[in-house]
Amino acid sequence: MKKSAYDQYIPHLSIDCVIFGYENKELKVLISNYRLGGGSWSLPGGYIKKTESVDAAASRVLKHRTGLEDIYLEQFRIFGDENRIVNSPNNAHLSNELRKLDSDRYSEEVIEWITGRFVCVGYYALVDISKVQTQPGEFDDYLEWCSINHIPAMMHDHREIITYALEALRERLDKKLIGFKLLPETFTIKEVQQLYETVYEKSFPINNFQKKMMDLNVLEKLHKKYTGASNTAPYLYKFKKESVA
Amino acid sequence: MKKSAYDQYIPHLSIDCVIFGYENKELKVLISNYRLGGGSWSLPGGYIKKTESVDAAASRVLKHRTGLEDIYLEQFRIFGDENRIVNSPNNAHLSNELRKLDSDRYSEEVIEWITGRFVCVGYYALVDISKVQTQPGEFDDYLEWCSINHIPAMMHDHREIITYALEALRERLDKKLIGFKLLPETFTIKEVQQLYETVYEKSFPINNFQKKMMDLNVLEKLHKKYTGASNTAPYLYKFKKESVA
Repeated sequence: MKKSAYDQYIPHLSIDCVIFGYENKELKVLISNYRLGGGSWSLPGGYIKKTESVDAAASRVLKHRTGLEDIYLEQFRIFGDENRIVNSPNNAHLSNELRKLDSDRYSEEVIEWITGRFVCVGYYALVDISKVQTQPGEFDDYLEWCSINHIPAMMHDHREIITYALEALRERLDKKLIGFKLLPETFTIKEVQQLYETVYEKSFPINNFQKKMMDLNVLEKLHKKYTGASNTAPYLYKFKKESVA
Repeated sequence: MKKSAYDQYIPHLSIDCVIFGYENKELKVLISNYRLGGGSWSLPGGYIKKTESVDAAASRVLKHRTGLEDIYLEQFRIFGDENRIVNSPNNAHLSNELRKLDSDRYSEEVIEWITGRFVCVGYYALVDISKVQTQPGEFDDYLEWCSINHIPAMMHDHREIITYALEALRERLDKKLIGFKLLPETFTIKEVQQLYETVYEKSFPINNFQKKMMDLNVLEKLHKKYTGASNTAPYLYKFKKESVA
């Protein structure tokens, strides 16, 4: 970030992204190790340019961190507590650490910017994890996919943001058929069911689930997926593009 | 607003409230006539003090405009288009009108503040319309209850904000049992049904609706409401407080 933070961005307003991926029957979230926060974990985030919409800012941040264009994303809540501020007594170490760093890189202005109060707009995004090439942002040391069941201690209210994002995902997964965005292009019905079971943390009767999926008329049947005995090989499907929410 | 706007409030961030009321089988919204906008209509709104949470700011604005404490409110979306700005070419008349006004009341700083870009946090609120005593804010001339079906031309994207709020209300009315907040303390089942039919713009079979309401086990039966023949008088109910969402 150059010295022109206040010229370039809307002050006191940030974006945090809960990027969901799905792998090995686990729902995962992309989190960032934040050296300046004493090595604590945080959500990938950023600021909003004065000349771009808040949605465009979220898309820009997501594209930068994942290397993907056209990611499915949705704002789900703002987090506006008055104590969302790094410059609070219990975060004094962070301001100090920032000041210890190369002053060319982090001017007093940038330190003032970063350590002020931020109202955060929470976005969740759904990606095909196999396509993501993570790239750290300016304040990330590195990014890591972490199972939703093993989230480490997070900065600020970032744990709470993940909880709200998961709630929003559960509400909308069924209604808006966005779950397919977490899967590779082709999949078996069983894989769809496993995804749903993972997100909702419960099991569904296989026949009911299969019938329900078929009744939605959004899947296109492809060829069989041969991995073992051909008589038990399941069909592969893909999501019909025109049915996208 | 005194000259200290930038000291007191978070810049570029505002709140707009879609305050729903229900009267004469109509869903209504409280809107404000905004003299400075050339007499156009807008949603009651305000800014966020640097020392208060965004939710607290919304409560403060709502309390001021309605005279009610403890209003049910919920944030539902932010509106962050880069062209949410009064100081755009097609709003030049507004800046000019502001400048024409008493300069004690509106300093250049305030004019710069008001006419800049704002990211808006949308809240919807549900009130018992019979209890509201409206009070104009600093930039309202007067407030008026307006049927959702006859909303006049609104400033900026305020019409769109109402549309999103109505969508959020419909989504949550059933799930969170918040509809009772639009009714007086006691009501008949038929009145509840009329409310639901008004919000969803469709009719429900009376027996199904009644059974569904009773099955929820959130209503307390009181005495009969005698207005005509006593043999057909319906029972009055009230919402059990402990069931509030």
